[in-house]
Amino acid sequence: MVLEYVSDPADPRLADYTGLRDVELRKSLEASRGLFLAEGEKVIRRAVAAGYPVRSVLTTERWLRSLADALGDALVYVAGDEVMSGIAGFQVHRGALASLERVALPSVPEVLAGARRVVVLEDLVDHANVGAIFRCAAALGVDAVVLSPRCADPLYRRAVKVSMGSVFSIPYARMDDWFGGLAQLRAAGFRTLALTPDQAATPLHAAGLRDRVALLLGAEGDGLSSHWLEEADEAVCIPMSPAAMAAGVDSLNVVAAAAIACHGLMTSVNLGSI
Amino acid sequence: MVLEYVSDPADPRLADYTGLRDVELRKSLEASRGLFLAEGEKVIRRAVAAGYPVRSVLTTERWLRSLADALGDALVYVAGDEVMSGIAGFQVHRGALASLERVALPSVPEVLAGARRVVVLEDLVDHANVGAIFRCAAALGVDAVVLSPRCADPLYRRAVKVSMGSVFSIPYARMDDWFGGLAQLRAAGFRTLALTPDQAATPLHAAGLRDRVALLLGAEGDGLSSHWLEEADEAVCIPMSPAAMAAGVDSLNVVAAAAIACHGLMTSVNLGSI
Repeated sequence: MVLEYVSDPADPRLADYTGLRDVELRKSLEASRGLFLAEGEKVIRRAVAAGYPVRSVLTTERWLRSLADALGDALVYVAGDEVMSGIAGFQVHRGALASLERVALPSVPEVLAGARRVVVLEDLVDHANVGAIFRCAAALGVDAVVLSPRCADPLYRRAVKVSMGSVFSIPYARMDDWFGGLAQLRAAGFRTLALTPDQAATPLHAAGLRDRVALLLGAEGDGLSSHWLEEADEAVCIPMSPAAMAAGVDSLNVVAAAAIACHGLMTSVNLGSI
Repeated sequence: MVLEYVSDPADPRLADYTGLRDVELRKSLEASRGLFLAEGEKVIRRAVAAGYPVRSVLTTERWLRSLADALGDALVYVAGDEVMSGIAGFQVHRGALASLERVALPSVPEVLAGARRVVVLEDLVDHANVGAIFRCAAALGVDAVVLSPRCADPLYRRAVKVSMGSVFSIPYARMDDWFGGLAQLRAAGFRTLALTPDQAATPLHAAGLRDRVALLLGAEGDGLSSHWLEEADEAVCIPMSPAAMAAGVDSLNVVAAAAIACHGLMTSVNLGSI
């Protein structure tokens, strides 16, 4: 490690970490500089283990000790709690922030090769939802995630945090063509299942959840586009309580739906069928 | 309706709505005054339909028109967008806030009577998680929710919002005795299933998810207390991907776990077994 001590939250060396409260600025910086932030020892360890180059780490003397073995020859800024708490958005109890370089994503065909179960996210806008779905997908044995061209970024800080670092452990790719995206999945031998709240669709547990299945999840609120719904091989739904439907509770949020569907995918492949 | 026009965000008549950013103050006010807030037309309608007395509503001329039929003889403060946006935490696009009176909760035996499937939350601290679990439980046919004495409040503003008003549609009660809580469930004829990430527990799909089952969910991070884990009739788990476990992705968040488990409860009762 190369240690540098910092005593001023406004120190220009900390530019990667400052301005965290300004969401628009942050998004723009993260994309244009090709960096992303990981927060907390566990998540930083996962990012480093996944091979992302470390630009720098910002931590305190106390937390440095528990992270040191993972940091190789990284540049580490060490600061006191008073500097840390001057950096907007920094939570002292998480102890460390790392700025890492993005690497080139694999292509869609590359992540599909060898995968049996994939989740496809169309235009999700909420970074926390994207992170939570990655966490579910990783825990429940999904092999890869494919994002529509406009889907929110899994390496945005909040997505990384909510995913607990699962965005580093599950391969993902971003389509460059929304319109022809499902054709690309089918060409790779995947059956596409569109998850919809429409209770007239095939119930999840009755769908043919065999090998090489791509589960399509739509945006918060609007759900899947009509183009993808129509083009998918089958529309599937999670059966709701009739009493709840009558009372106007007509859908699950996308993370809950994703969790149930990913569990269904895993159980069906392991057990033959649900 | 009784209409009163307000032109100053600091108007003392708006005391129920101000200071929303101060979480601690808010919690204390909501409990001590016995009020809670509902946000947005859909959620306000659900609260009114569920019988909660309306203290007042705060809205704009434009949104008043779409809400008017639901408000009976309520006191309505009407303000311009500039006043609204001066009230911390108010999102203009949601159009309306209502302050409602709490009513006495039913007792645990009262909500258990006639219920077949219940969810029991032990000491959850995150209001968004409590709200999200209520939404899942309502959509997936859970009949009632039982809270441990220290579990976060389902009527706290963020819980109400995330639940989309499901906290009004599903009966719930709060235990007054944590230690003897499970005995109370058993006395009402419920089999208690403790959900744990421990993969040595019975897989959810192999558990006897028959009628009159109480699913126990523990706090974020720590999970269920050892007392409840030991006292439950059976420990059940959601099977994880062995590869994910090896990579250190060792659990689902409590909302994802609740969604999968509630879906399992509903499917098992409807289909006989999973």
